[in-house]
Order: sequence, then structure tokens, then C-alpha cells
Amino acid sequence: MLLEAVYHRPKLNWSYAYDRETIHLRLRSKKDDLTHVYAFAGDKYMWDQSKELIPMSKMTSDELFDYWTCSVKPPYRRLKYGFLLQSGEEKIWMTESDFSKEAPADPNRLFDYPYINPADLFTVPEWVKDAVFYQIFPERFAKGDPSLDPDNVLPWGGKPERDNFFGGDLQGVIDHLDHLSELGINAIYFTPIFEATTNHKYDTADYMKVDPHFGDTETLKKLVKACHDRGIRVLLDAVFNHSGKTFAPFVDVLEKGEQSRYKDWFVVREFPLTVKNGVPTYDTFSFEPHMPKLNTENPEVKKYLLDVAEYWIKEVGIDGWRLDVANEVDHQFWRDFRKVVKKANPDAYILGEIWHESSGWLQGDQFDAVMNYPFTDAVLDFVARRTLDSEGFANAVGKQLSRYPQQASEVAFNLLDSHDTPRLLTLCDGNKDLMKLATVLLFTYSGTPCIYYGDEIGLDGDQDPDCRKCMEWDPAKQDRDLFAFYQKLIAIRKDLPALRTGSIDFLDAKANESKLAFERRLGEQSVLVLVNNDSIGQTIQVEADGEAWKDAFDGQEWPTERGMLSVRLPAYGFAILTRVK
Amino acid sequence: MLLEAVYHRPKLNWSYAYDRETIHLRLRSKKDDLTHVYAFAGDKYMWDQSKELIPMSKMTSDELFDYWTCSVKPPYRRLKYGFLLQSGEEKIWMTESDFSKEAPADPNRLFDYPYINPADLFTVPEWVKDAVFYQIFPERFAKGDPSLDPDNVLPWGGKPERDNFFGGDLQGVIDHLDHLSELGINAIYFTPIFEATTNHKYDTADYMKVDPHFGDTETLKKLVKACHDRGIRVLLDAVFNHSGKTFAPFVDVLEKGEQSRYKDWFVVREFPLTVKNGVPTYDTFSFEPHMPKLNTENPEVKKYLLDVAEYWIKEVGIDGWRLDVANEVDHQFWRDFRKVVKKANPDAYILGEIWHESSGWLQGDQFDAVMNYPFTDAVLDFVARRTLDSEGFANAVGKQLSRYPQQASEVAFNLLDSHDTPRLLTLCDGNKDLMKLATVLLFTYSGTPCIYYGDEIGLDGDQDPDCRKCMEWDPAKQDRDLFAFYQKLIAIRKDLPALRTGSIDFLDAKANESKLAFERRLGEQSVLVLVNNDSIGQTIQVEADGEAWKDAFDGQEWPTERGMLSVRLPAYGFAILTRVK
Repeated sequence: MLLEAVYHRPKLNWSYAYDRETIHLRLRSKKDDLTHVYAFAGDKYMWDQSKELIPMSKMTSDELFDYWTCSVKPPYRRLKYGFLLQSGEEKIWMTESDFSKEAPADPNRLFDYPYINPADLFTVPEWVKDAVFYQIFPERFAKGDPSLDPDNVLPWGGKPERDNFFGGDLQGVIDHLDHLSELGINAIYFTPIFEATTNHKYDTADYMKVDPHFGDTETLKKLVKACHDRGIRVLLDAVFNHSGKTFAPFVDVLEKGEQSRYKDWFVVREFPLTVKNGVPTYDTFSFEPHMPKLNTENPEVKKYLLDVAEYWIKEVGIDGWRLDVANEVDHQFWRDFRKVVKKANPDAYILGEIWHESSGWLQGDQFDAVMNYPFTDAVLDFVARRTLDSEGFANAVGKQLSRYPQQASEVAFNLLDSHDTPRLLTLCDGNKDLMKLATVLLFTYSGTPCIYYGDEIGLDGDQDPDCRKCMEWDPAKQDRDLFAFYQKLIAIRKDLPALRTGSIDFLDAKANESKLAFERRLGEQSVLVLVNNDSIGQTIQVEADGEAWKDAFDGQEWPTERGMLSVRLPAYGFAILTRVK
Repeated sequence: MLLEAVYHRPKLNWSYAYDRETIHLRLRSKKDDLTHVYAFAGDKYMWDQSKELIPMSKMTSDELFDYWTCSVKPPYRRLKYGFLLQSGEEKIWMTESDFSKEAPADPNRLFDYPYINPADLFTVPEWVKDAVFYQIFPERFAKGDPSLDPDNVLPWGGKPERDNFFGGDLQGVIDHLDHLSELGINAIYFTPIFEATTNHKYDTADYMKVDPHFGDTETLKKLVKACHDRGIRVLLDAVFNHSGKTFAPFVDVLEKGEQSRYKDWFVVREFPLTVKNGVPTYDTFSFEPHMPKLNTENPEVKKYLLDVAEYWIKEVGIDGWRLDVANEVDHQFWRDFRKVVKKANPDAYILGEIWHESSGWLQGDQFDAVMNYPFTDAVLDFVARRTLDSEGFANAVGKQLSRYPQQASEVAFNLLDSHDTPRLLTLCDGNKDLMKLATVLLFTYSGTPCIYYGDEIGLDGDQDPDCRKCMEWDPAKQDRDLFAFYQKLIAIRKDLPALRTGSIDFLDAKANESKLAFERRLGEQSVLVLVNNDSIGQTIQVEADGEAWKDAFDGQEWPTERGMLSVRLPAYGFAILTRVK
């Protein structure tokens, strides 16, 4: 038994309340080292009468480790616990202070989950589990009201540059909601829509005003209502880490320097505000002089931004906020943000933009989820960049699942591309088969999938600004085969609850192989997802009960033989199977 | 290289801001496995120009692992980082996603410390680093005003029972401050003093009123002023997890059941409030019917308790709060508690009673420190229970140091006994030599030492209620040798800053041995602490520069020879050495 590999620590992903009655415990061990793991648990105030051994099951694995889990409902909402590790005949007990061959005599040295306080419960909005998101970059999605065009507007469909404009607006979105309904999505994430100078609007001038080139509050209300009427939720982008250079308080500091009454709204290292050798004398996003970092610790700034967060929920009824550069803003701010937002709309989805490990924000007091770029990397490394084999993919997503409490994984925001990355089709070097395979993984995995506008009709594009092309609205120029493909995948996901909130188990994911099989299971429903990530056809064999399974995608039936299912998949083929007999 | 043993995770004790400019990084590896570890770090927005390798040093070890650390001052307060692990010639790079023999090409897959936000800084009160605490259980410390005695008071010095009274009070403390000044302590922690029915007062009846058998607000003010005049800080006990059964809101619920306007002040599982088979129908501390758990999530309750916390700081000027059963109260409450308390007194010390791993409370948003019972266990296992050898002791305290950010360890509340444990002398089976040795470890270790009243004059006593005997005030019956010993140790600690805030390094701590040597170092000051935890004399040899070292305790000088210091220690002897030549 490799004790150096064994890990448990109270809190975070290791011991947390899943709901008001349930505690989840997890333990990590060296891959394939332990045969059985038990939690040794009871009530600390009646230890002898209540202690018991609770079997743990393997929830996921990565390249080095297995992760074990169990779910406990302690009658008095508190749990003292240790672990019993078993490898064949060998048994080791683990307490908070040590490992031992003897069962712990002193419960005081065990781990402790002191009490499930509902105030600390990590509760996520249920609707997100059933959501399929669509990301819209408003300047490039659709033009609905040419009268709002900026002066320097270019004809729709031109080459996107960092600083050019094509006149997309909110009315354009309203005009094209049929496209989204037809596709089947039920939530939109809009990149920023408030007044700003750039085409991306991440340099806010006025947080209380819709950008006049996009529309006004009335247009936004109309848009949100039209979406809600179709069962589509709306998420807006909160750019609270920094403002734009035309934000009135910043303009005041630029003008008046230390005399400005807004000087503490920003993080100034040295007056006057200037740029020396490419480095602003004030903190900014990156080293961008036109994106001064907001001092979110200043009570005035905090109040202003929290009022903004509340205002758009109450005024136009949005369903949540995506938080730009969320990791660089203080935790205290986000804690108060959560209180304000959830009070205004208990069902609001709070989604942080964090690219790295985010456990510090996913404890129930800040965000519901983060943009799951580690998932993006895993899928792209496997399918597009081809740097991972099947085992490598399973390890990468397994590691990601192990990192956060289950509720965060249930509403993880999974994406394959965005306005901040090259487009999926381009990442796949224009190979539609690869693109489809990656998309199958997106739609059959746990968490909430998001489609970047235009991917569904074959838009391509390299890194920003190229990934921000105008949406193609000419049906003749749209890839309708791809559209039908997305449409079908969305329908399948909607049809099969196991794909949304089921458990996930890899059945086939070996080193140096390109075959992948995993099962999603929810109650009685089991969905087998088979993927051939190779340029030649392959047969995938998995254990399966029943007599026959049917592919939800193409309707083909596959019979089982002696408890095995053999499915022949063409190059880059896939199957999404449910039992029919 | 055993990669399964390597651990780093952003936040907690692994990456945190130590002050407004400084980030501490830590990494764990298998004991004695790595020869060198480097942080590979830079600014994420100018990675190529800023990346560098920063050597890490071994900060501590435990039975399985070494812990490496480094301190970085990134010019723009943000740090992207990975690690380079070296074992002889072998080199492995560690990113957030994997280990590799190649240097990471893509900084996006490194770990991230996004930005030092001062609002999230974990700042602890400076005075605590220089404090020596003395814990007083007021009912048993001293009687100053017999007119306040409860009706059923017993003669001072009788056998303590769970429910008897001897008439200790606040005037008694005032009367005996000379004893404390003579001893040399500079902070007192009082167990509860607010109105309650029991002798321990952990069943509060009225949080706004000093227990009438102890005095009144005026006596308390007089006491706090008298302490402050002597440079002694005062910490009170906040029992906010539960109230007592005579707390007016609880009385109301007992009487009126569901009709009570206070019904949501508690956590009632079933009305009416009663006890079934020993289990109350409402949540309590343990299963004590007379200690109903307060619903700290109820805004009314929260406001009431936060007002209490603020009131006693503002009204009588206390220097902080010790929080009873702190782990069972919700984190949201403690976060607001910290804001209220630090606003009322930025120097207040917030000390949680948590016996187990407390990282969830030691992130800067809740407590400054916890009662360090794992340290208690380590010392007692080594010296009193004799279940640990020198290596085991070093491992146990090393593990504890690794768990929290440095600032939490600097103000850790170290104790060897309390009102909740048998007394030190009794734990040492009456052996004063052992007791002294344990106390030497307490006073030479990092963190804030606390003496339980009476230990210093030889009080003994087993588990509660026996550990709550009346203080002995007859000099003839006091152990004055012991008193002088404590006095000297306190003076030495005050005299040698390295003992308070210096680094700690074990120089000799081997398996199956009873010799222990460690160094405390602060700037130029080095203090060598040598301990012979054995019933026969032993010589301890350690490397030491200079010509001679002097024992701060008995004044003896020890010469160095060829860079080595050989110190002969009698049975259970010790030396606290500083260089004199």
C-alpha cells in the first residue's frame, strides 16, 4: 500500500455537504493500489453506539490516482470519521494524525465534519443541469437595427479586426431567435452589452446603460422577454475586475489625479496615471492601459457594482451573470455578490471565468461554476491536437471531476471554444469529423454544454480577432449538415436525463488506443457512449446487459451476445446507446 | 522520484499571500526523495520576460513527507507558477495538469495566484506573537467579594463536582493580578463570565450581563482596566454555538412551542421541545438538553450575537474573543463576526476552539488561530504518554506547521491542558521533571503559549470536574519551585525574540531516541533548544558556530569544539542556548 499517495483533507472536494442531510466523503489512493476502502464514521457525541464502516466506491481516476467516494446521512448532521484502507489482506486505518494497523482507539484523533449548517450549503440552480448554452458575441451575431450602427461600420461578413465594427445588435438577436429555437438551445450567454468603446465591450464606460450601438434597456427587456417566452434563459457578462478608460470615475482620475474624489476607485501605484515602458502606473487587466483595475474593496465601488448586479436582474429579469477575469477580484467581493444576486433571484447562475484550478471559488459561498477550460483542453488534446490517447483523456477529465464538490461538476460550464480561443473547426484543422467527435464528447459529458455562436453552421476562425467573425445568415452558405448534427445531439441530451446528471464511468480508455467507451447512469437509465477517435474503423466491445441496444443518433440496433456488445464504428464514428430490449 | 507523494494545490497552506507584496508557495514531496525544488514563476501577462526559477527550501517534515517553501514578491502582485523537482540528476516539471520531463511550453497550464487582493489578506494581531496567556476559570480562581457568593457556596478548596460552587469572582482576579504580573504573563483567557446557571457558565442565560456571582459590568471594566494598566490583554469566551436553557428566547420556545416568536432562534427538529431516549428533539451541543444550538443563520440571532461581540469590545475594551465549539457554527456567521470584531478593534485576537484540522477557518476571513490541541497531543505523546520518540514528536509538530499559512502558526494558541482536559501534572503522573520538560517545549516553540491557572504552583487534577479545582493561594501550599521555573521560562521567552517568531529546524530527532534538538532562528539570533526526554543522563551533540554557548536557564556555558557543541543533560534535562562568543 503506497501511503504517500493516500490523501484526504477535511472540506473542499474531500468532505462537503451535498444537501441538508448528506455528507460526501472522498479519498485518494495510488491507482490500482487499494481493493476496498471504507469510511469509519459515527456521531462524535455517541461514538461507540453509532460508529460503522461505510463502503466507498471508486468515483474516478487519473494517471496516478484512484478517487473513492461515499455518501452519508448522519442523523444529527455531524460526522466524526476515519478510513479503513484495504489492499487484498492488508488493512490500514487512517486518522487525521496518522496511519496505523490498529483500529483507532481515540475518536478525537479522527477527521471531523462538525455540523451541516444550511448557510454553508453549496446550492446550485437546478435549471442549469438541463441547460444547453449558446454564446453570443453581440457585435457579430446579427444586425437588426441599422440605425444604431457605429459611424465606421463595415459591411456584414468582412474580415474581423481588433478594432472594426459590423453593426450586430440586440434586435438582431431577437430577429434570429427562431434559429436558436430550431437548434434547440435553452440558454444564452452574451459577452458584454454595456456601453463601451470596443467591439467586444470588455472596457465598460457605463454599467447602467446598454451600449447604444446594441440598443437600449427597452430592447434588452424585449430580448429577455422573447427569450423567456421560448424557454431560453439569459446570462450577461459582468466585467467587474476592471472598467474601461471612458468610465466616468476613471476619466475623473485621469484628469484630476490625486485630487479626484474617485482616486480610490482604482489601484494606483503612482500618480499621475501614465504608462512607463509599456507598464501603466496603475493596476490594470494584463498591462492594458484602457482597462484599469477596479478597487472592489472600496465600499463605494463595491456598492456601485453590487447595485449593477442587482439592477439588471430586477430590471430586465436576467438569469445570471458570467464574471469576467473573476479570479483577480477579491473573494470578499464575490461573497457579497452571491448574497445580492441570489437574493434578487435565487435561481440565478453565477459563472466565473477562471481557467485554472478553482476550488477556492467553488465552496458554495461564491460561484456556482466556472468556465471549464480544463475540460476544453482534455477534449481538444484528445480529438483535435491528438496529444492524448484514450487513457489520457479519461485521466484528464477524471482529475477534473475529482477536484470539486459534485454540485459544481453538475453545473460546470463546458465549452470547446469561445471568443477567447480559436474556433473548434479551425482547431480541428477544418476536419468536420473531428469537430463532430469533440462535440459528441461535449454533449454526452456531465456539466452544461455551451456552443459558440456559428460553430453549428460551420464558422471557422483562428485566435481573436479571427474567431469573432460575423455570423453567416445565408442558408446557402451555412453548413446545414452540421446544423442538423448539433440539433440532433441537443435533442438526444434533452431526451436522456442520464447524459445530463448521470454518473460517469469509463468502460474502455486504454493507453495507446483511440477507442473510448463510457457509461452515464441515472437510476434505471444507462447510456453507453462509444467513440472511435481514429482514421480507420474499429470495433468497440463493452459489457452490457439486456438483448439489444439502440443508437440514439442513427437508430441502429446492436444486439448483445453473452453479455457483450460489439459495435463497429467507422473512422471517427460514435454511438450513443440505450437499451431497448 | 515518487510523483504520487508530490502535492501542491492553489490556496490554503500551499499558495497564499503573507502580506501585501509577498506570496508563499509550498510543495510536498516524499521524505528524503528530492534534493532540490524550484518554483518556476513569472507574470502571466509577460511570461517570457519575467519567468524565473526560484529555489525552495525545506520548511518542515513529517513521517512521510518533506515540505518545501519559498517566498516571492511579484512586482504586479500576481504569479503564474509551476515547479521543477530534482532528485540528483533527475528532473521533472510539474504544472497544474501534469508532470513532464520537458519544461512547460504553455504557461496557461501552470498554477495561478491571480492577484494579491488586500481584502483577502490574512492579517493577525502583532501583539499575540509576543503574548504569554494564562487561562482562568473564574469560579475557581479567586474569591474577592463573598457577598456575591451563590447560596450553595462551599468552602474554598473543596472537591470540585460538576455542579458545585466555591465562589470565585472577578474581584478575586483583580485582587490577585500581582501573582500574574510576578509570573510574567501578559494575556488572560477567561472561560465564560456571562450569566448562566452552571459553574462553568457555558450555558449562557444572558449574553449582555456579567454573571451576578462574578460581579457586574463595572467590575469587569475595573478588571480589564487593571489588566491593561499592567500590560495584560483580556480575551473573553464567546459561547455562540448554543445558549443555556435559561436564555429568555429559549424559555419562550419551551413555553410556547411553535407559537413562540423565537421558534426560529433554535434548530428544532420536532415540536414540542422534549427529550426522547436521551436525544433532545432540537439540536444541541452534544446531546445536552440544557445547551440548545442557536440558529446563527437567522438574521435576528446573528444580529443579536454580533451586537454582543461588538458590545463587550466597545463597552469594556476586551482584546479578543475565544469562540466555543467554533466548528459547529456556520462559516458565514464567522465571516461577519470577523468584520464586526475587527472593525470594533483591529487588534482583536479571534481564537476558535477547534480540536481537529482547521484550515477551513484559517484563511484570513474567519479566525486568527485555533486552540492548538494537535500540538498538545504531540507534546503529551512525547513527554507524558511516552508513545512518541523524538522523531515522532518532530513529525507530529512538523505536520501541524505544514497545515496552515505561516501567519496562523505565528499566533497558534499552544496549550498543554485546559478546563477540558486533565491537568498537565496529572498527565505526567505527578512527575514534575516530565511536567517541566513539556513546559520547556511549550515555551520554546512557535505560537503563543498558554498556562492553565494553577499549573504554575503545582495544582493537579484529572478530567473535568477534577481539573477545575480551586486555586491554591496559601504560599506554604504552593509549589514555589515550580512557580520560579515558569517565571524563568516566561522571562526567557520574552528575552529571546527567536523563541517567539523565529524559524524552527530540528537538528536531532531520531527514531527510537529520546534526545531532541531544534534551532529557533530570527535574523542573527539563533537559539538552540536541547531536550533529554529520558530517565538517564545523555549527551546531545549539535553543529554550532562560535566559541561558546550559554544556557539561558541556568547560565552554564558550553564551549564548541571543531564546530560541534556537546551538552551533557541529566535525566529529563534541557538547555536553551544562545551564542555568547
